[in-house]
Amino acid sequence: MKKVAKKKSNSHSFGERSLAVHKKLRGKIGIESKASVRSKADLSIYYTPGVGAVSTYLAKNPKKIKEYTMKGNTVAVISDGSAVLGLGNIGPEGALPVMEGKAMLFKALSGIDAFPIVLATQDTESIIETIKNIAPVFGGINLEDIAAPRCFEIERRLQEELDIPVLHDDQHGTAMVVLAGLINALRVAEKNPKKSTVVVSGAGAAGNAITNLLLKFGIGNLIMVDSRGIVHKSRTDMNPFKDHIALLTNKEDRVGSLEDALIGADVLIGVSKGNTVTAKHIQKMNRDPIIFALSNPVPEIMPEVARKAGALVVATGRSDYPNQINNSLGFPGIFRGALDNGVQQITEDMLLRASKNLAALVKKPTRDYIIPNTFEKGVVKAVAKAIR
Amino acid sequence: MKKVAKKKSNSHSFGERSLAVHKKLRGKIGIESKASVRSKADLSIYYTPGVGAVSTYLAKNPKKIKEYTMKGNTVAVISDGSAVLGLGNIGPEGALPVMEGKAMLFKALSGIDAFPIVLATQDTESIIETIKNIAPVFGGINLEDIAAPRCFEIERRLQEELDIPVLHDDQHGTAMVVLAGLINALRVAEKNPKKSTVVVSGAGAAGNAITNLLLKFGIGNLIMVDSRGIVHKSRTDMNPFKDHIALLTNKEDRVGSLEDALIGADVLIGVSKGNTVTAKHIQKMNRDPIIFALSNPVPEIMPEVARKAGALVVATGRSDYPNQINNSLGFPGIFRGALDNGVQQITEDMLLRASKNLAALVKKPTRDYIIPNTFEKGVVKAVAKAIR
Repeated sequence: MKKVAKKKSNSHSFGERSLAVHKKLRGKIGIESKASVRSKADLSIYYTPGVGAVSTYLAKNPKKIKEYTMKGNTVAVISDGSAVLGLGNIGPEGALPVMEGKAMLFKALSGIDAFPIVLATQDTESIIETIKNIAPVFGGINLEDIAAPRCFEIERRLQEELDIPVLHDDQHGTAMVVLAGLINALRVAEKNPKKSTVVVSGAGAAGNAITNLLLKFGIGNLIMVDSRGIVHKSRTDMNPFKDHIALLTNKEDRVGSLEDALIGADVLIGVSKGNTVTAKHIQKMNRDPIIFALSNPVPEIMPEVARKAGALVVATGRSDYPNQINNSLGFPGIFRGALDNGVQQITEDMLLRASKNLAALVKKPTRDYIIPNTFEKGVVKAVAKAIR
Repeated sequence: MKKVAKKKSNSHSFGERSLAVHKKLRGKIGIESKASVRSKADLSIYYTPGVGAVSTYLAKNPKKIKEYTMKGNTVAVISDGSAVLGLGNIGPEGALPVMEGKAMLFKALSGIDAFPIVLATQDTESIIETIKNIAPVFGGINLEDIAAPRCFEIERRLQEELDIPVLHDDQHGTAMVVLAGLINALRVAEKNPKKSTVVVSGAGAAGNAITNLLLKFGIGNLIMVDSRGIVHKSRTDMNPFKDHIALLTNKEDRVGSLEDALIGADVLIGVSKGNTVTAKHIQKMNRDPIIFALSNPVPEIMPEVARKAGALVVATGRSDYPNQINNSLGFPGIFRGALDNGVQQITEDMLLRASKNLAALVKKPTRDYIIPNTFEKGVVKAVAKAIR
């Protein structure tokens, strides 16, 4: 308990320092000019009258826009503020510092120019129309922190209606990184993916995408659990996305609670809420269980508790424990690859390859090192080369 | 004619060089991080978990957003591509290099972070909804190159419905700079504004705003001329904006052509099309006529022709003649002032003061120096201090 208290106070002090730093910076990103404009001669080339020739050319050859403008290296990070971090529906103002932070990471890790857009609407159709309308300047759309199930419809429609890659990072970026970690965790535990049972606790954006990507990877048996218990075909209280998941998962047609799902399971992936898993849950699992407790900042179970209950590998979303499963291992490389390779649609096949590439960066995985950290060399490149 | 041919070939060579430079740069602006992100410790402050405290704070205190995020120094430069430069309706792809160029100028001249948004729609309601939806990240909206009369409705509605300043620069930025030049031109010609007649040729975005600001300034008699002739109360072929202008202008109830309007006039302000004014027009005017031939890149009449016909002061939009009336004298200071002074609405009173401040920078105006150039010191400051 002492340890937990200490972590909480650390997190609190991060918050205070962060507030002070944000107030000092008044914005973490800005616009940079790639050339200096100091004379009328500069104006004549970068602006009028010279730019008229570029405009005329692009009006006639709109497909050349990436070669003559910022579009080829620019991504929008777009949120409606409805599911921000673990904070929930805090609106556009609350979302902005997070999106700015993400733009910083895009620049620092992959050299991509990302611009944050926080929306004054949470209406699905209005969000879709708005993003379609502003798309011409962007080479890709990173949807961020949009609540399920709205996020599924928004992503699907935009993917259909735009000719640039659209990725809801909370879904597919998360899933890609989770799978990379899982590949190595299974190696450490000497478990065969095809013969393993994975329980995904949480049926939001992340849980949904993780389930789909793990199925694609070939996990033998998957069970999804939402706030009402195990997702199974005979339930009548689910949305169409869960109905669909029920058809693909839960081979033994189990019913019941998270605890029921975990009996004999090999892996638990928590993308739900802090403090929802206990030692007793873990003790119901198969030998050498793998626990990904990804709720942030408070995990489903604290790593020290999970270990004591018998977990072999524990991963969290936190930077102060080993095995941090963090989206920043994913999105910089995913978009770097998409932009450089002219990818219009980021497919599950690409993400699956990216997971394998990312996992392969860890030559000898151990229970405390299943995934590289964000700043390790080669991460962006390994992911990017899968997105083509 | 030789001179004209030379100018044309210069402009052509600007175009070729501009195309080459744009292709090399692949975007004239990018995103810069205001702090480096190189470690997990950096992440903890700029991103998670620290940023959670900032998000929580702003969700509770949304009005503090300018103090903790980029909003306080960020402006959107938004165009639907419907009236770009003198090129007309060339769409979002054609518009983008111009908007990037404008963002460069914002940064270079006033330190403002401007981001270009080019829209995939030209529908008035869709444009309004889109801009309202993306407004939370911006401290101001610079509408650009949107065709009349759509631009009037879009600007008015956004001004009413947003709590940040919205300015259609082709209207009010242009009008502010034109008036600044006119104030000094009238001094050079020793003409009393109240006793002067000004003919505005062109009834689009610029013509409309110029007419209104000149009336506010106190020009004695104004006559607007559109493609069908003088705007007057008995015409039935006009839009509501021109109907309104007809009530405020044309004291003598003149009818007829541009030539009829110019009889005895002191000033001609052309914001219409190249080569639409002749020496004969100018010879109909009062003594020492003032000619602002602002169509770009081809003016309504070439300066050498206008001078030969008797014009005392000639201004154009071009950088290769004296007296360049250029929007870049306006928008950087207008938005600098609006952002720094928390201005929610940029009023005509503010613009009038800005015109006077800008004109006053020229201590001794001559026929070849009625307005500072864009890179002269003090321009942004003089304009900014009027916007409060």
